[in-house]
Amino acid sequence: MALVVQKYGGTSVGSPERIRAVAQRVAATQRGGNQVIVTVSAMSGETNRLLALSKEVSPNPAPREVDVLLATGEQAAVALLAIALDDLGVPAQSFLGHQIRIETDSAFGKARIKSIDADNLRSAVTQGQVAVVAGFQGVDAQGSITTLGRGGSDTTAVAVAAAVKADACEIYTDVEGVFTTDPRICPGARKLARISFDEMLEMASLGAKVLQIRSVEFAKRYHVPLHVRSSFSDVDGTWVVPEETSMEDVLVSGVTLDRDETKVTLRHVPDRPGLAARVFGAIAGANIVVDMIIQNASAEGFTDLTFTVPRADHAQALKVVNALAAEVGAAGVATDTDVAKVSIVGLGMRSHAGVASTMFQVLANESINIQMISTSEIKVSVVIDAKYAELAVRVLHEALVERGAAAGARA
Amino acid sequence: MALVVQKYGGTSVGSPERIRAVAQRVAATQRGGNQVIVTVSAMSGETNRLLALSKEVSPNPAPREVDVLLATGEQAAVALLAIALDDLGVPAQSFLGHQIRIETDSAFGKARIKSIDADNLRSAVTQGQVAVVAGFQGVDAQGSITTLGRGGSDTTAVAVAAAVKADACEIYTDVEGVFTTDPRICPGARKLARISFDEMLEMASLGAKVLQIRSVEFAKRYHVPLHVRSSFSDVDGTWVVPEETSMEDVLVSGVTLDRDETKVTLRHVPDRPGLAARVFGAIAGANIVVDMIIQNASAEGFTDLTFTVPRADHAQALKVVNALAAEVGAAGVATDTDVAKVSIVGLGMRSHAGVASTMFQVLANESINIQMISTSEIKVSVVIDAKYAELAVRVLHEALVERGAAAGARA
Repeated sequence: MALVVQKYGGTSVGSPERIRAVAQRVAATQRGGNQVIVTVSAMSGETNRLLALSKEVSPNPAPREVDVLLATGEQAAVALLAIALDDLGVPAQSFLGHQIRIETDSAFGKARIKSIDADNLRSAVTQGQVAVVAGFQGVDAQGSITTLGRGGSDTTAVAVAAAVKADACEIYTDVEGVFTTDPRICPGARKLARISFDEMLEMASLGAKVLQIRSVEFAKRYHVPLHVRSSFSDVDGTWVVPEETSMEDVLVSGVTLDRDETKVTLRHVPDRPGLAARVFGAIAGANIVVDMIIQNASAEGFTDLTFTVPRADHAQALKVVNALAAEVGAAGVATDTDVAKVSIVGLGMRSHAGVASTMFQVLANESINIQMISTSEIKVSVVIDAKYAELAVRVLHEALVERGAAAGARA
Repeated sequence: MALVVQKYGGTSVGSPERIRAVAQRVAATQRGGNQVIVTVSAMSGETNRLLALSKEVSPNPAPREVDVLLATGEQAAVALLAIALDDLGVPAQSFLGHQIRIETDSAFGKARIKSIDADNLRSAVTQGQVAVVAGFQGVDAQGSITTLGRGGSDTTAVAVAAAVKADACEIYTDVEGVFTTDPRICPGARKLARISFDEMLEMASLGAKVLQIRSVEFAKRYHVPLHVRSSFSDVDGTWVVPEETSMEDVLVSGVTLDRDETKVTLRHVPDRPGLAARVFGAIAGANIVVDMIIQNASAEGFTDLTFTVPRADHAQALKVVNALAAEVGAAGVATDTDVAKVSIVGLGMRSHAGVASTMFQVLANESINIQMISTSEIKVSVVIDAKYAELAVRVLHEALVERGAAAGARA
């Protein structure tokens, strides 16, 4: 008998009909001889509705109370799913954050899980019940309700799976799994059967929206095998698992596209120690998370300092940098919002030289100019003109995934 | 410095604008030098919306989970009110049932409060915060969420007031207080300045909907002075208080009308010991609460057994009685749904004979036939033809309240 944790997103429980459909699937899993714990998000649209309500009451709503408000979304969803299960004759019980003591820090709106008391969950499933756990919410040491931020229900599912030592954590979404790239851009995209935690982490942070990055970190740390699959079909999705030896045979397992960044450049700045610290200290002080940073020092003692920020923070970042420009002696500030970040990810890059240069050559063949480059052990990202974004994804996928697959496939 | 508990109903917090208006009133109370604890119901319509949602998922939703679902209504309301208070610069914190351990029994949907841990509330108000307590909800000994039934937020407010030993519990409604009768029926109706707990209990159970009856029982038991007043004006409402000597000077303090009962008669039954037990045992077995019961034994050893039941249970009661009629040897079953119950209530009846006979004479003067009579120490109820209901209320109010007021007023 396996112990399975399943997580369904807001779209999967978006209406009474869909909630009943999820209940059918959960019931089938249990009838198949498994113990089942289910985590659900709020019904789709509910979190936004509640946030809008809070804004109607105050332009700047108190963070502690926003969490109390938002937590009602998942509370309603677990109650309804437990009702649907009970209606099918499946004994079920809902559990809220405080009832299984999902203890978090006190960072309202983006709390981090510290521990879960899994005793009640274990005893429920041992008694043949389905335990329905509210995603996205916890309690801090004072007993105040906290929420985990967007996508937090993925993290709840993985944390619960780790706490009960589940055999698998199934993440149900509206796509069939993790794809080598976005199928809407590239017809040759195909579903990955398996992917390593590290690759998934890179892909999640590079714009693949299928899993919340913190849930992957959690799964990696606690060795929870994740199965990303569709709530609308029965076919296997993608397993996110610890690294396997054969995985390095594939050079590039995915190509990602992120249009959500913009570029800011401090031009011709005297290259003095402490310059970067001064600039990025100010940016961080405005609560803006910088992604890529490039600094090119020229022979004459001047440098161009370029970085990317989330599109939503562009105006604010520009304000900070403009205020700093004179102080650091920059010749000016340049920005570009028409950029896109295209990345390739793959464990094979560790052991195979030349993947990056192949990438650059493929782009050069299409006359696509590379504005910025950033690399890690298992990924290469480039920033290019936004208008070439889809073209770049397609040619990179063809050259590095489709043709690479012919050599050492991982399907 | 006084410690005040205020309770606002669903209409008072029915929109973001109204929530801000309630926050203004709470802030003013605090600025007036009081410590304030506020209890709120769900925004108007929310509880019905959630109930409908549960019925869409299952025709017979699991009671434990319905309570988890319904409790979200009050949770959202307290969060929004705390946000509104914070926006006004008033430090505020919401408290849910489990956070101040409002412990109840496990009767989901109609739980009864057993205890409240008031330490967190006391410490919040001592620190200058407004404590915003979710009405209607509690937790049982296992930590499951429970709800108290319709009007349960009144009971929460009174129980909280008792737990913190508040100086007063203010119940805000959409009317100005407790009236001698329904002003829509009787233009001479006037607001009572004071009424005793016992009179209020009778009036609440006789159809005056201003306060939930269980909250009045609670207030009486723990000596919590209640102030029923309008959330749309600043004038004093009605104080519900322990009995005062002068109260007996007023013979009749109110006339109530209840159209929510129907009449069922078992005709010409052999009058044997155990008959009533057999009949009302069966009715109780169907979970129907009988109100008035009249049995008239005739000389020939036969009796008519008449009783009233809530209109919603009429069909079910009839089914039970029809099934019993042959067994107990009744000549038949008669029913009447076009009836109304009119009652007079007043402490003065205890010491003043003749009030009941005056009531009967006033009705006789209008040729209104009395079908059933029931009395207690401080009330007389009659069941009459529904078409005379308003007329009966008007003439009784004129004769016993308005003219009685000329003698010994309590205004």
